Amino acid sequence: MTDQGAPMLGVLGGMGPLASAQFMARLTLLTPAERDQDHIPTVLWSDPRVPDRTAAQRGTGEDPLPWLLRGISGLEAAGCGAIAIPCNTAHGWFDGMVAATRLPILHIVDAAAEELARLGLRGGRIGLLGTEGTLAMRLYQKRLDQRGYETITPDDAEMTRVVSPAIAEVKANHVREAYEPLMEAAKRLVARGAHAVVLGCTEIPLGIAAGPAAPFPIADTIDALARASIRWHQARQGA
Amino acid sequence: MTDQGAPMLGVLGGMGPLASAQFMARLTLLTPAERDQDHIPTVLWSDPRVPDRTAAQRGTGEDPLPWLLRGISGLEAAGCGAIAIPCNTAHGWFDGMVAATRLPILHIVDAAAEELARLGLRGGRIGLLGTEGTLAMRLYQKRLDQRGYETITPDDAEMTRVVSPAIAEVKANHVREAYEPLMEAAKRLVARGAHAVVLGCTEIPLGIAAGPAAPFPIADTIDALARASIRWHQARQGA
Repeated sequence: MTDQGAPMLGVLGGMGPLASAQFMARLTLLTPAERDQDHIPTVLWSDPRVPDRTAAQRGTGEDPLPWLLRGISGLEAAGCGAIAIPCNTAHGWFDGMVAATRLPILHIVDAAAEELARLGLRGGRIGLLGTEGTLAMRLYQKRLDQRGYETITPDDAEMTRVVSPAIAEVKANHVREAYEPLMEAAKRLVARGAHAVVLGCTEIPLGIAAGPAAPFPIADTIDALARASIRWHQARQGA
Repeated sequence: MTDQGAPMLGVLGGMGPLASAQFMARLTLLTPAERDQDHIPTVLWSDPRVPDRTAAQRGTGEDPLPWLLRGISGLEAAGCGAIAIPCNTAHGWFDGMVAATRLPILHIVDAAAEELARLGLRGGRIGLLGTEGTLAMRLYQKRLDQRGYETITPDDAEMTRVVSPAIAEVKANHVREAYEPLMEAAKRLVARGAHAVVLGCTEIPLGIAAGPAAPFPIADTIDALARASIRWHQARQGA
């Protein structure tokens, strides 16, 4: 029998569940494969009961960390060798998760930075769309600024009026309704000088994919994290 | 904190991985939900290393049962309360899996029968597309005949020339290339008197979705199993 001991990729998901499903699809489609057995063994822990991350960041909701740690324990028990989390806002609890596991956790913002480099952008002004939580915690600014990027975001009024409602539409399975407001918000960032727009919430690529393609570079954090996961797997295979 | 003890749905997948991702997406989209927390907590064990089921049935490949049981153990350890398997051919090892777990396993052919009933078809001639393994093991005939259906399938030559290569295309991520041969095979079953066609391999709906819709009723076994999973979850919620 083939080596059953090879570590599986662990995916801490369900935030939201459609973004996790899309992550699994993109992980599969981006993997060079000719048959089932060429694909990456993966365990997806999709627990949509994890309390709302933005509400927790605001101080109006339950702490998600115990739920995130429960998922990590499940993935450890399943024999996973690394963890990918297709939810940007959950990375606000990254340090707490890292402290609780011996497994490496692939950081989605580092994956987004690799994606920007892949698009030929190695610095300069970048637009960021994400949840209020991700923006307030400055998850992107902290990691992208030191790589030479300047991150700009929608203002508070636009977040409340356009971006947050569009993310909620995707979470309610209304993907098409999210396209126009998200594309509008992305275009406004480009008008303010962004050379590319990072879709820094994994619901956003689902909305943006529901209409015509953007006429500017897009860094999709679902694809970015899928590519980082494939690199992790390939490095393990080569080892 | 919300009840963390509620059992999760276990999905034994990876056969193939794209079909499992699609199952997760359809499970999400078919669930009535307004926010993340309304969705079904799920663990997907996506292990594409499970040996080829059709080759095993033919006697030319390794037995997949130990791999299937390993996944079931993982899903049990994760605290799952039932198991769904979005691979029709794997149901050839259904009895062996049932014998090895205390968890209920939702049978994909029973789910397909529910889907036919939902489409208004409560008997009569039904076309079946599936792998050579599924056809040879008569997985559908055994369960559908006793519900009053007569199952017809492509002949051996058509399986070899059209259906099996199209399934392999999907497993190699070439989804669009699979559309025409699969639609051609489905149409031929309708020409032979089938009132509907069951897509009895979870790769097939991916190919069939890559082009114009069929002008006859289709029972998609990914959607069928997703609906059966939602019924399981709703029954647990009501309990």
